[in-house]
Amino acid sequence: MIISQMPTWIAVDWGSSNLRAWAMSAGGEVLDRGGSTQGMLSLTPADYEAALLAVIGDWLPDVGALDVLVCGMAGARQGWVEAPYRRVPARLDRLADGAVAPALDSDRLRVRLLPGLCQHEDDSGRAFDVMRGEETQLAGLVAEAPAFTGTVCLPGTHAKWARLDAGELTGFTTYLTGELYRLLAERSVLAHSLLSPSVSASSGSDALADPTCASAFVAAVQEATAAPERFSARLFGIRARDLLDETLPADERRGARLAARLSGLVIGLELAGARVDLHRDDTVTLIGNDALCARYALALETLGIAHRRLDPERAVLAGLGLARNRLATT
Amino acid sequence: MIISQMPTWIAVDWGSSNLRAWAMSAGGEVLDRGGSTQGMLSLTPADYEAALLAVIGDWLPDVGALDVLVCGMAGARQGWVEAPYRRVPARLDRLADGAVAPALDSDRLRVRLLPGLCQHEDDSGRAFDVMRGEETQLAGLVAEAPAFTGTVCLPGTHAKWARLDAGELTGFTTYLTGELYRLLAERSVLAHSLLSPSVSASSGSDALADPTCASAFVAAVQEATAAPERFSARLFGIRARDLLDETLPADERRGARLAARLSGLVIGLELAGARVDLHRDDTVTLIGNDALCARYALALETLGIAHRRLDPERAVLAGLGLARNRLATT
Repeated sequence: MIISQMPTWIAVDWGSSNLRAWAMSAGGEVLDRGGSTQGMLSLTPADYEAALLAVIGDWLPDVGALDVLVCGMAGARQGWVEAPYRRVPARLDRLADGAVAPALDSDRLRVRLLPGLCQHEDDSGRAFDVMRGEETQLAGLVAEAPAFTGTVCLPGTHAKWARLDAGELTGFTTYLTGELYRLLAERSVLAHSLLSPSVSASSGSDALADPTCASAFVAAVQEATAAPERFSARLFGIRARDLLDETLPADERRGARLAARLSGLVIGLELAGARVDLHRDDTVTLIGNDALCARYALALETLGIAHRRLDPERAVLAGLGLARNRLATT
Repeated sequence: MIISQMPTWIAVDWGSSNLRAWAMSAGGEVLDRGGSTQGMLSLTPADYEAALLAVIGDWLPDVGALDVLVCGMAGARQGWVEAPYRRVPARLDRLADGAVAPALDSDRLRVRLLPGLCQHEDDSGRAFDVMRGEETQLAGLVAEAPAFTGTVCLPGTHAKWARLDAGELTGFTTYLTGELYRLLAERSVLAHSLLSPSVSASSGSDALADPTCASAFVAAVQEATAAPERFSARLFGIRARDLLDETLPADERRGARLAARLSGLVIGLELAGARVDLHRDDTVTLIGNDALCARYALALETLGIAHRRLDPERAVLAGLGLARNRLATT
């Protein structure tokens, strides 16, 4: 594709299973988008440069080189080249200080891989934890509000809750929510009871458009937060309900309603843990896809917790832009 | 095999994935044992009689017929013939009243399939739940002590906690503990960190012989019961600990210790739920295999809860014997 304006730099979010790239103007506008399914899990270090050029090659100038800022698993130990974790507390406008440059064959690129963040167990209640990719979305918040203070939730396979204080990430917690949902829906005894398990917690917003599914989701959120110790009993209860509850519809709405219940239980368990760390009057900032954020919004409303949304693409581009500015001025 | 004394009746525990049979004397002694891997999941209704005869055929007399008492999934809707669930509260000495006789080609057998038990959601706090097989082990307790009152735990893939009151099952709760462990150890992001996931929660007693593994298990039980709302965060924490904790050994003990931690988290979450229902000064009766009961015993001791063991074979044989006596006298 020919783009009318030459990009000034290129933003890349390179995860385990895919690569997304944006051609950026000097003013921070997106001039073009590209992507592929060549993620960390399918690449060896020698493959990365070619995989990148296959996506962004058309954006490069005939003369000179462009900055390419990369976040995500490409910087993991098993990725292109390791950008070692930086430890919290960490100022999110300084991520670039841990950036690493891979060796390249091409002279048309200046690639920098941003580091992830890690947290060590300590006496203040912090537990071992890691993130790689989400820190750049959080930096996007700081790009827009340098002294940002508040709690941020990034739903997903491994959902992250982060606490920011004046632009510094002071602590975070990862919940296995999305992975638990998928394993239970697809591979446990519950798979017999759930309709189309591919409608996962991360893609099933439509299911909650059905009011009875939304009710089942909300009831499950309430149960999981009121008595998190009953979580694994309530999981088996979904199977028992399918066998015994004569009020369930017999058609495909049956599995959808039980799937909504499972989603409410796993998201509710996450919220039961996360709300312990919430500060009084906190508004939770949700960064994630529309379908999943709609579920989290409903769950947060069920608990009376205020929330707002930040578009995940806007967040990652702002975070990568902040890192590029830092590199240009240091 | 030729056995010296002719059996008076035959006991069968027929589950999803295997069949176990015992040739019984009039006095309740085991004269011989047999079994196969032909469980409910691999059989159609027309296959059951031949599968049974393949195991017990040699025990049958040349003339006359023997009682064959069967518990377990063979009586499920998708089994040999359905023995419908009976509803709690249920007197465990009356299971035989719900027994069903399948049609047979052979005139050398009198087969009775015992029912499972179900529980419906009600205002007293009961939740939907089902069991099929465990009720016969519980009946074994009642065979030995007709007015048994107390709390019983049957560890396993779907662990059951049951409350008995004067020989009546008044309520029960199933926890997905064993299945959660297996899914997380074998199919989640934690699989990368755990050594030999086939050392499952249900077979890994040896691992806890290592004192550091036992310590990791106990610490995880304490954490899961103290803050069950952090369960899914602590799951991801196992992965983060593997990446960051420099105190972990680098050899194969590393994975074993992290596996012990996972086992402690899932069993601890179960105990967090179950202890809410415990009566003051309850002694928990554990019915299950040695390895798993050893873990539960350690977890219960960690929480200061008294326990005793009942051999699972003794329990099921006593329960089937109780049902046979009931059939003989009604």
